[in-house]
Amino acid sequence: MKKKQPSTFILDVDGVMTTGQFVYSDQGKLFKVFGPHDNDGIKMLQKHVAILFITADKRGFGITKKRIVDDMGQQLMLVNEYERMEFIEKKYGLKNIAYMGDGYHDAQILKACFYGIAPVNARFEAIRSADFVTPSRSGEGAVLDACLHLIELFFHREI
Amino acid sequence: MKKKQPSTFILDVDGVMTTGQFVYSDQGKLFKVFGPHDNDGIKMLQKHVAILFITADKRGFGITKKRIVDDMGQQLMLVNEYERMEFIEKKYGLKNIAYMGDGYHDAQILKACFYGIAPVNARFEAIRSADFVTPSRSGEGAVLDACLHLIELFFHREI
Amino acid sequence: MKKKQPSTFILDVDGVMTTGQFVYSDQGKLFKVFGPHDNDGIKMLQKHVAILFITADKRGFGITKKRIVDDMGQQLMLVNEYERMEFIEKKYGLKNIAYMGDGYHDAQILKACFYGIAPVNARFEAIRSADFVTPSRSGEGAVLDACLHLIELFFHREI
Amino acid sequence: MKKKQPSTFILDVDGVMTTGQFVYSDQGKLFKVFGPHDNDGIKMLQKHVAILFITADKRGFGITKKRIVDDMGQQLMLVNEYERMEFIEKKYGLKNIAYMGDGYHDAQILKACFYGIAPVNARFEAIRSADFVTPSRSGEGAVLDACLHLIELFFHREI
Repeated sequence: MKKKQPSTFILDVDGVMTTGQFVYSDQGKLFKVFGPHDNDGIKMLQKHVAILFITADKRGFGITKKRIVDDMGQQLMLVNEYERMEFIEKKYGLKNIAYMGDGYHDAQILKACFYGIAPVNARFEAIRSADFVTPSRSGEGAVLDACLHLIELFFHREI
Repeated sequence: MKKKQPSTFILDVDGVMTTGQFVYSDQGKLFKVFGPHDNDGIKMLQKHVAILFITADKRGFGITKKRIVDDMGQQLMLVNEYERMEFIEKKYGLKNIAYMGDGYHDAQILKACFYGIAPVNARFEAIRSADFVTPSRSGEGAVLDACLHLIELFFHREI
Repeated sequence: MKKKQPSTFILDVDGVMTTGQFVYSDQGKLFKVFGPHDNDGIKMLQKHVAILFITADKRGFGITKKRIVDDMGQQLMLVNEYERMEFIEKKYGLKNIAYMGDGYHDAQILKACFYGIAPVNARFEAIRSADFVTPSRSGEGAVLDACLHLIELFFHREI
Repeated sequence: MKKKQPSTFILDVDGVMTTGQFVYSDQGKLFKVFGPHDNDGIKMLQKHVAILFITADKRGFGITKKRIVDDMGQQLMLVNEYERMEFIEKKYGLKNIAYMGDGYHDAQILKACFYGIAPVNARFEAIRSADFVTPSRSGEGAVLDACLHLIELFFHREI
């Protein structure tokens, strides 16, 4: 019997790939803080599974796109929190995907998906709905933790 | 008998919606760091109660206004710490409002108002005068904590 | 018998008024992160004792000056670490001053001065030479802690 | 019998001299956050041993160069993670050097070199391969910790 594997790993960006914080000037939202190690993890995991980043942040989309698409070469979609669950269900099937998120509204997706992951500094609503909580905080390597965990659990016996 | 509810939720900005820190260049105070999740909380709570943000920071007012007024669509007033208590008493009545603050000078308002909230990283003078201390730090979701707590305590039995 | 009081409170800036970190672009050292609450403390303490800020950071002097001199209205001197002890001895007398510092080279001044204070995140060499260690970290209110402590210890019985 | 000493101390930059985080705008990777105290340590250690900084970050090279080369006056080389081990072996001999790194890919160098050091917030893969783990986090003085430790262990009996 073949062990089931997720078809796609979908990751929220703010609070997962970043500290979740927004640096504002009087011109608006200018900066986001991305963490170390995470790009290493994505590069290892993408040999095994499709990767998709998803964000609800319209105002900060240019910042997110610069990092995720231009510098890391990954796919990124803008989908707001209220349409996110339906979007994933229709396009991928919730039961086929691994999902990583940190917010209040991510909790229901984490519960409904095949395998849910939250960073240790996520909202407790997300943490209690996740199958795995990373030892590292978001913006400090949480996504590398998640990638190594997924590789070990679904794609290899040992890393 | 109807349970008393606050008429307005008044929030300090620096150290409540932000980490409290000021990023300076040789041109002056340029940036503030706003946290994740808080805008979600404000959007949920404003269905139940009026929201007002208040700040004493003149030099950083443009930064604060950009986030609170332009991007979040909320009301913001500039009132210094020494006039704040009288301002609230005259305009709203201290006994009618919920208040969230983190500073040394917020302690007396937290004690005198209907319901006082402090982030866990507030000055201890504020913490010991508050009715509720949020589990999250300011700039890391303290305001979502406060909003969920107020909804549960005053507006719903369950969230 | 009159209780001895410090004549001047001398404070290092980086790692005392700031987190100690330097934000660099490819143009050089651009930003420093100043904490909340500290200016409140300085305003309270300066009714009782002279205040002097001291820094060894030449490249970041414009940033430091903007915050300390232009925005807070305080005195600031550029004195490097190796001349600092002699400078203080000659100009103020080490035995007359209270001093706050966080670095490896501050340890000897903290030991030799009338009353030495270190933030809790200072180098342990500074911490073990200090008379008082603040509960707050630098850039998170350590200087307000120090000011309240000095007022209580030397200028009032109660705050 | 003479005690063996490292011939060169090679340090990774991101996550060792910095917090490891990248501050992005919509223009790309703009800033890195360098910590306090580390330059003091390097100045003390370089009286005893050659120092070399190494980085794999092409996009952020201008930022790193500004701090390490222009402001600190140190040597810096761009070598990617996959060629790093061979580069060090050929040019210096792994068994002759002390190495400080924080990442997943640094683990094998830390294990193979003469003396390996990791900051306390390094990836656990690096930590378990290191001979010494610094009490301070990267960007908060980890390199000063490392320098004082190397001086005490290899170059002096007491500091």
